[in-house]
Amino acid sequence: MVPQLLIEASTKYPRQGIWQKNEFTPYPLMLSRVLKLSNSLLRMGVTPGTVVGILDANSLRFLELHYALASIGAIMHPLNFRLPLNDLEYTIREAQDDWLIVGPEFASLADALKNLIPRQITMPTQYEALIDQGDETFPNIPIKESDPYSIAFTTGTTGRPRGVIYRHRDILLSSWQVVHHLALHDSLARPTSEDTMLCLIPFAHSHGWGIPFMAPYIGASLALSQKLSLTDQVDMITHKQVSWANMVPTQLYRLLEHLPRPLSAPFKVLVGGSSLTQGLAKKAQKFGLKLAVIYGGADQLASAVSVSLDQSPVVSIQTEPIFSQRLMALPGVELQIRDDNLIPLGSESGHVGQIWVQSPWIPTAYLHDPDATHKSFRNGWFATGDLGIGHEDGSVSVVDRLQEGIKSGGEWIAVNLLETILSELEGIDQVAILALPDAKWGERPVAVIQTRQILEPESIVAYLLKQVEAGRIPKFWIPDHVFYIKDMPLTSAGKIHKQNLASKLDMLSQEPHE
Amino acid sequence: MVPQLLIEASTKYPRQGIWQKNEFTPYPLMLSRVLKLSNSLLRMGVTPGTVVGILDANSLRFLELHYALASIGAIMHPLNFRLPLNDLEYTIREAQDDWLIVGPEFASLADALKNLIPRQITMPTQYEALIDQGDETFPNIPIKESDPYSIAFTTGTTGRPRGVIYRHRDILLSSWQVVHHLALHDSLARPTSEDTMLCLIPFAHSHGWGIPFMAPYIGASLALSQKLSLTDQVDMITHKQVSWANMVPTQLYRLLEHLPRPLSAPFKVLVGGSSLTQGLAKKAQKFGLKLAVIYGGADQLASAVSVSLDQSPVVSIQTEPIFSQRLMALPGVELQIRDDNLIPLGSESGHVGQIWVQSPWIPTAYLHDPDATHKSFRNGWFATGDLGIGHEDGSVSVVDRLQEGIKSGGEWIAVNLLETILSELEGIDQVAILALPDAKWGERPVAVIQTRQILEPESIVAYLLKQVEAGRIPKFWIPDHVFYIKDMPLTSAGKIHKQNLASKLDMLSQEPHE
Repeated sequence: MVPQLLIEASTKYPRQGIWQKNEFTPYPLMLSRVLKLSNSLLRMGVTPGTVVGILDANSLRFLELHYALASIGAIMHPLNFRLPLNDLEYTIREAQDDWLIVGPEFASLADALKNLIPRQITMPTQYEALIDQGDETFPNIPIKESDPYSIAFTTGTTGRPRGVIYRHRDILLSSWQVVHHLALHDSLARPTSEDTMLCLIPFAHSHGWGIPFMAPYIGASLALSQKLSLTDQVDMITHKQVSWANMVPTQLYRLLEHLPRPLSAPFKVLVGGSSLTQGLAKKAQKFGLKLAVIYGGADQLASAVSVSLDQSPVVSIQTEPIFSQRLMALPGVELQIRDDNLIPLGSESGHVGQIWVQSPWIPTAYLHDPDATHKSFRNGWFATGDLGIGHEDGSVSVVDRLQEGIKSGGEWIAVNLLETILSELEGIDQVAILALPDAKWGERPVAVIQTRQILEPESIVAYLLKQVEAGRIPKFWIPDHVFYIKDMPLTSAGKIHKQNLASKLDMLSQEPHE
Repeated sequence: MVPQLLIEASTKYPRQGIWQKNEFTPYPLMLSRVLKLSNSLLRMGVTPGTVVGILDANSLRFLELHYALASIGAIMHPLNFRLPLNDLEYTIREAQDDWLIVGPEFASLADALKNLIPRQITMPTQYEALIDQGDETFPNIPIKESDPYSIAFTTGTTGRPRGVIYRHRDILLSSWQVVHHLALHDSLARPTSEDTMLCLIPFAHSHGWGIPFMAPYIGASLALSQKLSLTDQVDMITHKQVSWANMVPTQLYRLLEHLPRPLSAPFKVLVGGSSLTQGLAKKAQKFGLKLAVIYGGADQLASAVSVSLDQSPVVSIQTEPIFSQRLMALPGVELQIRDDNLIPLGSESGHVGQIWVQSPWIPTAYLHDPDATHKSFRNGWFATGDLGIGHEDGSVSVVDRLQEGIKSGGEWIAVNLLETILSELEGIDQVAILALPDAKWGERPVAVIQTRQILEPESIVAYLLKQVEAGRIPKFWIPDHVFYIKDMPLTSAGKIHKQNLASKLDMLSQEPHE
């Protein structure tokens, strides 16, 4: 199954391959290394069903393991080295890792894990020795499409990381549908075999969103980002060594800050992981970047990509509020906006609800966690934890995380979207929407703003009423009160510290100041 | 499974749909008709596993049945009304058809089948009554991807038609991969949602090569060719009502004869079913047609499409001999050129051998025919009955049908290819290669030619030696003798009557004449 991708790439696209710094490994050479490695691993007892943890940055060797382990039926567990140690250990115990393969920068972390997982193979020395000693023959292990390919974990922002199993067919189908959908619909980020694709998403996040499978599939070359500094990235892009990349909005933001000038050649970017603001999208376009948005997650893989931004008949990103890029479900995927009783909301309703998804590659359960499974997986559907609005063409806009939303009179208010719309008002520097308990409505929103000029509460309400008239928000979203603050409290990550803010709401003025 | 395609098209592409003559049925309306029909059929006893024969031209109603039957788990058997009656009856018995749905032009044929299959539904009256009476709800029938979708038969040019079963997943995966491969590789015949696709292949031939599934999938409109005259086709094309079509070379040939002048707008054509000659391809290009070639068959579905003719680094069609379009296996498909002992021949060998294919959607057996099954299906591989040559990039050229080839000294001579190369020689009007028994080599080729000027056997051999030097053919392909004939005997279909020719070989001269 998955290894077939590399075999086909070696035959069809023998001149394409992997760039790591200035070193190029064509697909046929990579295949040869993968085969040798597979046979050596098999000989030392890595057999069908063996779980192998990988602790490495996005390296060529890590990529090779994506094919080598699969070709002998072993199951990869890409370790998320950014997790706190106790969470990392938790994932190793949950996945029941039998072996650990360790990249050169992670030797001390691997030492700390030695009690938990004593069988370790180090890169590059032991790893390269395995390749040197291996036969270059196809391991004769039958692999079925429903065999497990890997074990992945959520980042666990709301508790323990949760594990899911991806099967070979899940990996192939989801990667294919992303690349097909981008190709069929003339997406701005349509990848072709002419591209060199830079994978800026760590392999621990759904295998870098599947780029290790997409590039050989379409015959593109792949550039790996192991320890790639921003300066290196900018260099590679401006010197046209890469023409495509995937990244989260934060990476895009930092990249744009470092780009000296608009690009002369097209550079395609697939953005995902969290919401892309309108401002960032506009800035990227000014710099000549061609954007598409992907929607998915570790526990659902890819579910949707943005409707083609230039050719689509629907409203374009330019005139839409932030977060409301219209996402089209990938073929075979269904997205539903449901209310709290799990009843699907019609697209004409304009109501906010939780996004549920069903797809051919969606996992069916969290590993060893029946409670979380019951909460999120129901009859083949998965509760994404995202709030969304449905459109008549079947597309969906993600407006908030469920846990950030405010429930007022049984209806959701998308805090993220409301904050963005408020931040578009001239004079507002920072804005936070908080929930206040309300006897009648359950919760009601209040706004806390930091301004650079005097802004009367009345003019803020007037501005929001205009947005109501324009159909951007329902009237009941308008905050009951506006509080003014001079310096918004921030977390160490630079986000607004809402907990802190809520605790001092009593002390804030409801009078505007400069 | 398959019905999901239409549901998605109705939501995503509500303005696209089906053209039949001047009548347009948007996908949402078609879905509504399909749902009503499904529920009516279900009520009258067409349930999961029921086999329903369809006797109709490519009509909207026949298309609707592709989705209606599938949504209640019934199995479609598209009847090939061009088969001789006893073959047609044979396929009905083999498929065990429970019902027959009959198009208006086929009433008398249906009457002849009444004993064999008494339960019949006529179009339009009974069919439309079923739609009028049906509920527009989703039938609550669970369909698995491995459930049978339809029963198809080979045309049986070499004996009885043979039946195969297509599963839902086979239909989806094979159609998707064709359209994806055309889209990803910038094929000249790349279909987009802007296209209106004309299906000129009867649904009895692998469901019109899957166009009924591709069009809604990519959001294109579909034009159906029920009783479409050549004049109508030319009209639709020159008036830009259609921008894409599939057809066999004979249809292409006739279309080009009727096109008054080169086209002003691009018109894309997917050609398959038999070999596309270089002359025809060139003529089509002169008329502004954008061609791609598809390779497959009823018993394998689609296996390969031509390597992009304009962008590919390999030799283009312009300088290649007839039949040697390079075909690239679809992703997940493997093509092998094997010798008589089933040993794969290397691509560097340049040897001709039978093409074997393995794919995720290949059937595993012929219906009720263990002998034919054993001959053609081995360990998941299918013997195509085609002779081919492999190339280093993994692509394959089809050079002949196995049964037409000549076996000389254990090696294949591709008669079709050799004839074409000879026909390129100035002064030759017709050419036939025949096999003569040979004590040493088993068989040896001789050429029979009809000329319009004096052509010495020596100059013919000299010409062929040049082709040997150019690497187009091996030296042992050069015919041992050249015979001359004034009027080539032809079959009623206009092909050279080789049997007749072989019987009078003794009487032919080996001296050139005018």
